[in-house]
Amino acid sequence: MAEGYLQGPVLVIGTGLLGTSAALGLRSAGLEVGLRDASPTAQRIAVDMGAGFVAPRGTDFAPALVVVATPPDVTPGIVAEALAEFPEAVVIDLASVKGSVIDVLKANDDVAEADLARYVGCHPMAGREKSGPAAARGALFTASPWVVVPHEGSTSHAVKTAKSVGLDLGASITVMDAKTHDAAVALVSHFPQIASSLLASRLLNASASSLALAGNGLRDTTRIAASDPKLWIQILAHNATELIPILEGLQSDLDRLLATLRDPFASGAALDLAELMTEGNQGQARIPGKHGAPPQSFATVSVIVNDEPGQVAQLLTDMGEAGINMEDLRMEHSAGYEVGLVEIQVLPGRRDELVSVLTGLDWKVVQ
Amino acid sequence: MAEGYLQGPVLVIGTGLLGTSAALGLRSAGLEVGLRDASPTAQRIAVDMGAGFVAPRGTDFAPALVVVATPPDVTPGIVAEALAEFPEAVVIDLASVKGSVIDVLKANDDVAEADLARYVGCHPMAGREKSGPAAARGALFTASPWVVVPHEGSTSHAVKTAKSVGLDLGASITVMDAKTHDAAVALVSHFPQIASSLLASRLLNASASSLALAGNGLRDTTRIAASDPKLWIQILAHNATELIPILEGLQSDLDRLLATLRDPFASGAALDLAELMTEGNQGQARIPGKHGAPPQSFATVSVIVNDEPGQVAQLLTDMGEAGINMEDLRMEHSAGYEVGLVEIQVLPGRRDELVSVLTGLDWKVVQ
Repeated sequence: MAEGYLQGPVLVIGTGLLGTSAALGLRSAGLEVGLRDASPTAQRIAVDMGAGFVAPRGTDFAPALVVVATPPDVTPGIVAEALAEFPEAVVIDLASVKGSVIDVLKANDDVAEADLARYVGCHPMAGREKSGPAAARGALFTASPWVVVPHEGSTSHAVKTAKSVGLDLGASITVMDAKTHDAAVALVSHFPQIASSLLASRLLNASASSLALAGNGLRDTTRIAASDPKLWIQILAHNATELIPILEGLQSDLDRLLATLRDPFASGAALDLAELMTEGNQGQARIPGKHGAPPQSFATVSVIVNDEPGQVAQLLTDMGEAGINMEDLRMEHSAGYEVGLVEIQVLPGRRDELVSVLTGLDWKVVQ
Repeated sequence: MAEGYLQGPVLVIGTGLLGTSAALGLRSAGLEVGLRDASPTAQRIAVDMGAGFVAPRGTDFAPALVVVATPPDVTPGIVAEALAEFPEAVVIDLASVKGSVIDVLKANDDVAEADLARYVGCHPMAGREKSGPAAARGALFTASPWVVVPHEGSTSHAVKTAKSVGLDLGASITVMDAKTHDAAVALVSHFPQIASSLLASRLLNASASSLALAGNGLRDTTRIAASDPKLWIQILAHNATELIPILEGLQSDLDRLLATLRDPFASGAALDLAELMTEGNQGQARIPGKHGAPPQSFATVSVIVNDEPGQVAQLLTDMGEAGINMEDLRMEHSAGYEVGLVEIQVLPGRRDELVSVLTGLDWKVVQ
């Protein structure tokens, strides 16, 4: 029996990564889950993974909730169909852009206002670099934001249900209107994706000897450039309105930077470059850290380790035995080396103690 | 007694992060090291850290090598002075841009060709987000590229000495000419810095609720935006010639993207967006991985851990006891949560074994 507000049953339409993960998670939470996908293969994989049973049209399955987890471009149409097929059900979708879904639904004459009241948008801020049902996992949404995006006509029952799904999946609930949501994800998710892709695409013609000099700076800035093009094409197209002003800001900063670099020792040039760098410093410092802590509120201790099994484990064991919690860990290494640096983040008040414990145990702590 | 080609003594001019780190490392390698800095405070800190003794002008200290580790804008002048003051010594500098140093030296009528033959540029691809002598550490260069940049007149003795310093510091030696070096670092180091700073600077006016939705994508792409403006102003100005064509390429990609997003459902728009994304995929895939391995050549296993001392240590211990080496580790967490995902990278052939070992020990492996 489910513990939350939502008591099920649930129909998940679209058994890709998000839909199958939600189905697995909701089943773990004790809910009955039916599945549907336009691709028989994707549907079969989801069933084989234990995500639920096949629930085709025309059966007497009557879900309390329909989760539409289809590609963004077909989402509004499938939401409309679900509202018509299940006149008692709440319908949510999981698309990454919310304004375009509700706009298309409102413009659809076949969707009555009373039916639209049962619809609430949702956006789970979770994903993987892989896609498809085989990559799904019930814990995908654990510890991630689950943004609930009601429209002005959404009923309180529909909103409560949309929140309850997120809670059942272990996510943390945030409520926003569609415009605020789309502007926020344009800035913190879609714009970094574009920047990373634009940056990485410049590497296409780089020589191998140039790339051999790459360090963690390049690796970090380009990691998300590996994301799935098919999904992102739709996200970028549907959130174009919010992205354009951000990209125009970038364009104007870039034009100014290029003008400065064309005469880099002119009067005022150093000040221009300083402004670019310090604005970057200040913007970066605004990103919240782990557990909502202010960024850079942890102290770093760096230790040299050999590339042997058990080295990092032993290091963390020694740390755990001293009762010091690790807040974060990064491994730094360049291509071609057998030793590396492990950077451990701890509460600032525990830093000196950790250094003394590790040094006493003959770890090579670098200060 | 030092083991390498260089038998010292060494004079380090400039006791900031790089100079003091080099001095500490060379002392560990058994070399005698003298120190000089225009700032008496920086010089005193370096001495207190055990980096060497103060070696002012006018004493009879006769170094075999002078390491110029000053800010880039004063480097050519100090190299010229060192060549004049120590007529037998090899002189190297550690500036991040090499073409501008040798160009200024060649244009300096006070530097004879015979003296310039004793100069070789070097660029250690290492650094920290902190600066100054107090952040120095002898192991800073361990496992990092040390690029040796001879000019056409450099003697073989000078080149051998420049390589020997890198080897003494535990770095890995690469030889390039100045133009090749400057083009390579423009692409793999300076351009990512600019992209990260431009991206982060867009966050200056973001609302706190937008920033609360930030995930690892934004954190990774903006991490290096926290770098020191003072140093980077000089690097960008001195490598402007190599940066301009790269930034013009970005500008043209960005103009095209903006045109596409202004009419995102026009014929051809989806193809344009697909090209941006797939070129990003392909560029990212070219970056070499750890130990020079091809990128993405490791398999990932994800495990849910609680935020308690010793959890990750226990996980890695269990892994070590199974004899499976960890190639890399990432911690994923969003603001405000007490649980997180640990992503462990292992050789693909060991993945299934690791999953079975960890599952057998009741770890929550997510697949």
